[in-house]
Amino acid sequence: MAAKLYDLELSGNCYKVRLLSALLGAPLDVVPVDFLAGEHKKPPLLDLNPFGEIPIFVDGDVVLRDSQAILVYLARKWGGEAWLPSDPAGLAQVAAWLMVAENEIARGPNDARLHDKFGYPLDVERARKKAHHILGLLEAHLSRHSWLALGRPTIGDIACMPYVALGHEGGVSLDGYPAVSAWVQRVKDLPGFISMPGI
Amino acid sequence: MAAKLYDLELSGNCYKVRLLSALLGAPLDVVPVDFLAGEHKKPPLLDLNPFGEIPIFVDGDVVLRDSQAILVYLARKWGGEAWLPSDPAGLAQVAAWLMVAENEIARGPNDARLHDKFGYPLDVERARKKAHHILGLLEAHLSRHSWLALGRPTIGDIACMPYVALGHEGGVSLDGYPAVSAWVQRVKDLPGFISMPGI
Repeated sequence: MAAKLYDLELSGNCYKVRLLSALLGAPLDVVPVDFLAGEHKKPPLLDLNPFGEIPIFVDGDVVLRDSQAILVYLARKWGGEAWLPSDPAGLAQVAAWLMVAENEIARGPNDARLHDKFGYPLDVERARKKAHHILGLLEAHLSRHSWLALGRPTIGDIACMPYVALGHEGGVSLDGYPAVSAWVQRVKDLPGFISMPGI
Repeated sequence: MAAKLYDLELSGNCYKVRLLSALLGAPLDVVPVDFLAGEHKKPPLLDLNPFGEIPIFVDGDVVLRDSQAILVYLARKWGGEAWLPSDPAGLAQVAAWLMVAENEIARGPNDARLHDKFGYPLDVERARKKAHHILGLLEAHLSRHSWLALGRPTIGDIACMPYVALGHEGGVSLDGYPAVSAWVQRVKDLPGFISMPGI
């Protein structure tokens, strides 16, 4: 039976899960959530994820919250050693980029987009400043490496790419970041890639 | 040869690494960093971690940034399946709590402490509100579970405990969160536990 994703099409975090599933050929039932009505803030979804957020991922008796954690699950179940290796150094190098997605990218380009596109009340100037800080670090890294970790595509790339590529919806352009732009294109060129609105 | 930790005694993120190393019996050379002088913002430390932050962890030719990623490395190298399992569901369940440390706890009790104790210019009322939001979620979870994931201590607990227990240094008390307080005590009772100022 296919795993189930409680999904919002415009969420970059939900998109990450759809994208990795497509790249891995993992079957996925996508269940749209009525986000504006707050379906994720009420039972039964709130029972599946007490944090009141999506994505929520259900595979048999496995229930997961957090897009990065779901990528870990999918990579380990379907990807062998390719997308998330199991040796200490390889696993930790990829994990470090999952943390960049969860922290610097979430508080940078993601927050700026939440403000501009969805009206979230947050300090958008601060978010844009953080966005350009992490883009500068990514530009330096990707000027010397084709992929974020291990010299090959990993879930680090899948976790970090979406909100970087969506930054223009929050006033964060990739102009001036040629290495980042080329990396986004490399992800788009992966066999099996699927897109979302804005990417 | 022991691994090397570039360390600040008062950093909860550095403490996580010292704590897990102690619990695992992993040898660690602790190298104090002159944080006030910005030693971490200049070479050679900036070359090891271009993000300009500590902890930085070096084990032979493995160089890691981000405390959660370092916990992943230590657990996989020294802990067998105990602190971080390798099956898809177990690994992902622990990863979800590493993300809570990186996101909700960092932006809640950690930020409040950065403001109060170290004078960081941030919106402390917003940080305290976020702190009580995540403490409420933790209280509900820990009222039904002794540990955050898998019914046993994992690096999820090691990642999340320090800034929860340090919250009082940012005006975030654990009064009213008895299950969280009992969990902090359970971590303190683990064989080999070491403390830090404020915990």
